[in-house]
Amino acid sequence: MNILILVAHGSRREESNLEVDSLSKKMLKFNSNQFDKVIPAFLEFASPSIPEAIEMCSKIGAQRVTVLPYFLSAGVHINRDIPEEVNKASQNFPNLEIKVTSYFGSRDEIAELLMKTALEG
Amino acid sequence: MNILILVAHGSRREESNLEVDSLSKKMLKFNSNQFDKVIPAFLEFASPSIPEAIEMCSKIGAQRVTVLPYFLSAGVHINRDIPEEVNKASQNFPNLEIKVTSYFGSRDEIAELLMKTALEG
Repeated sequence: MNILILVAHGSRREESNLEVDSLSKKMLKFNSNQFDKVIPAFLEFASPSIPEAIEMCSKIGAQRVTVLPYFLSAGVHINRDIPEEVNKASQNFPNLEIKVTSYFGSRDEIAELLMKTALEG
Repeated sequence: MNILILVAHGSRREESNLEVDSLSKKMLKFNSNQFDKVIPAFLEFASPSIPEAIEMCSKIGAQRVTVLPYFLSAGVHINRDIPEEVNKASQNFPNLEIKVTSYFGSRDEIAELLMKTALEG
């Protein structure tokens, strides 16, 4: 079983966290059967945290976990916090193959999508 | 003259702010002549601020300014901070027509783009 964890920053505003939750559900539509499940996780202000999400994956029998950082820029969360949390969790679950993808903001499509947003107003 | 202001949160990490700067340049490629210029602005940690960017627009003779929030979720920055800063600035430049677009994270395309990132690894 291969589980995708969508990691967002997390907010004090519950609605923002629910947006991430609903986004993780929408993503399944575009899944080409590679992932059995998409679950959200948060760095701050909301749960599950990354270690909690990875523990959940292990408990439900995942062999592979893919961590996708939903962040716009390669700040300290991308360069330090997420790798650190993933490393800690992998020590607790040595049988789990855990991979971290590029962060969302690194996508080339963003410039075009931003201009589309501007043109639509 | 119509100027597009790409508003990002801003970071203590200069590289993150430079990413926004280079993104604002890339966006011009997808412009259908509606905007004469795309400039970045930041809520925190970097300049120009929104009021500074709007002042620049007025100084170089813009009649219209479009503010595009480069944020993933509709948190307090989208709901309070950006509208407040834009309102303050519009009082100082009553001849400028200023419009705020939807925030980037509201785009429907994001779920698909995230799944693409996950599948590419």
